[in-house]
Amino acid sequence: MTDILFLGTGAGIPSRSRSLPCVAVRCGSEIVLFDCGEGAQRQMMASPMSFMKISGIFITHFHGDHLLGLPGLLQTMGMSGRKKEVVIGGPKGITESVKHLLAACERTYTEKDPTDPTKELEFPLRVIEMDRDTVKFEGYKVESFRTEHGVTSIGFKLTESDRPGKFDKEKAIALGLTEGKEFSLIQEGKTVRGISPGQILGPGEPGRSVVYSGDTGPCEELAKATKGAHVLIHESTYAEGETELARNYMHSTCIDAAKIASEAGVKALLLTHMSNRYDDIDMLRREAIQVFENTILAHDMDMFQLTKSGIRLI
Amino acid sequence: MTDILFLGTGAGIPSRSRSLPCVAVRCGSEIVLFDCGEGAQRQMMASPMSFMKISGIFITHFHGDHLLGLPGLLQTMGMSGRKKEVVIGGPKGITESVKHLLAACERTYTEKDPTDPTKELEFPLRVIEMDRDTVKFEGYKVESFRTEHGVTSIGFKLTESDRPGKFDKEKAIALGLTEGKEFSLIQEGKTVRGISPGQILGPGEPGRSVVYSGDTGPCEELAKATKGAHVLIHESTYAEGETELARNYMHSTCIDAAKIASEAGVKALLLTHMSNRYDDIDMLRREAIQVFENTILAHDMDMFQLTKSGIRLI
Repeated sequence: MTDILFLGTGAGIPSRSRSLPCVAVRCGSEIVLFDCGEGAQRQMMASPMSFMKISGIFITHFHGDHLLGLPGLLQTMGMSGRKKEVVIGGPKGITESVKHLLAACERTYTEKDPTDPTKELEFPLRVIEMDRDTVKFEGYKVESFRTEHGVTSIGFKLTESDRPGKFDKEKAIALGLTEGKEFSLIQEGKTVRGISPGQILGPGEPGRSVVYSGDTGPCEELAKATKGAHVLIHESTYAEGETELARNYMHSTCIDAAKIASEAGVKALLLTHMSNRYDDIDMLRREAIQVFENTILAHDMDMFQLTKSGIRLI
Repeated sequence: MTDILFLGTGAGIPSRSRSLPCVAVRCGSEIVLFDCGEGAQRQMMASPMSFMKISGIFITHFHGDHLLGLPGLLQTMGMSGRKKEVVIGGPKGITESVKHLLAACERTYTEKDPTDPTKELEFPLRVIEMDRDTVKFEGYKVESFRTEHGVTSIGFKLTESDRPGKFDKEKAIALGLTEGKEFSLIQEGKTVRGISPGQILGPGEPGRSVVYSGDTGPCEELAKATKGAHVLIHESTYAEGETELARNYMHSTCIDAAKIASEAGVKALLLTHMSNRYDDIDMLRREAIQVFENTILAHDMDMFQLTKSGIRLI
């Protein structure tokens, strides 16, 4: 897991400067999207990430602003030659929702199956209804947890696989192993002629995690999932002064987000999904850093690189 | 009818410089949209036209690139306080298509009717299935005609009401009419105490028309509808050298568009919906002007004012 790219940081209604919710995370050569607001495909075209590398799109809930970029993006991937499966994850109801979005459109050059419009795409879609579940990919996984937004909603935790420790070649030779296949087996964690990987590999590094809140009020499952994560991407619809509004609409303030980041001990907090009611939007960041210092307020097209100590804008 | 604004001039897949099909036409204080590709709402936010003034949205066919901006725009209008009815016109199937788009989303704060998701908006939607039909508004009307795109598809002709002739105040007084209500009645076309409007008003001006092709190959009904129109907005997916491709995919070349403009005797031809296969996109215009001189190739956010002799970029 290397980069986090904000394709849309607005809330509900887009503005000239903020598109609707969508965050891309690069995992090796693949890309995972969290939410897919209208305009996501065009934002990607203006970014350094290619929409053809998307392996999974994870939707937190069915409010239109988090969802309506999905059919256009899928159709564009199909027209651009995508053949490999794409995973769509979302809360219970995602299958019906995706079917509705695709059934609204007519496709000319693909076989039609009146019972399943997802089959009209040029590549297989694997739509997965999630609650507290895990979807595994090569080298990383996406777990879901329940959030509290007044509708069926979930958040996601993306975790890369643990990294193996450094291979000590000298030690391997000293222990009598031969370069080539035997070295590979040790690196894959297998014991060779009584010699265990622990005798040759240095200490492994646990895979890093990024947690994405989606839309939610303060929420126990999210707090729990965030413990030990590297980065928390949290909605920050309101400023502290509008906590009551946040509670009524089951959203979070910047302070709610900062408290979760602080309690979980993440290395960095990225605020997104800001209401466009604020002239001075940086106020949300200034309030949050009083509670959690390493807070960054995301702007559209901001790209962050994960570092050992946190993240940095690139 | 005053201004034509191009919100999206791309075809199929958006690009950094071209959003998906959407053209706005200002009619008095109202705005009519033709097609509503993904991103239309955000393009409007960056334009001089307000999305809150939209009275009607007319969809030519159900390919996703012409349609998928609709649900987000409607939801934004609702969240922004729209209470007045909005008309959605489109070919047979538009009711089902709009229902699918809205059913894909969950709305929190509105009453739900499981049989009709269009009722979940904060304002009434009037969805009209059109073939060869007319939808009347105050001061203008939208007529539909069949086009040829290999799917159910229509084009539209927007015509403003005839303008009344100039009121000759001196003549009205000389004939014994009194200023105020009697003058108004004459201006509304009514006879007052035996004096007919024709005795006082100068010659009226016929209302101007704008024709929008949508996606289509060369097509008789479109040619017929365009006769006598002021402006033709025509798709121009391909250059002349790719006429065969245009025929296969039931699209038009720039030359097809120019021929219709020339035969119909319009004052100006606006090319839109250009494939992003061309590095030198202005080539389409250069080819077209060989057939019809007053051809303009539209770019995103271009706004044109209708003038007596044609149009001008403002």
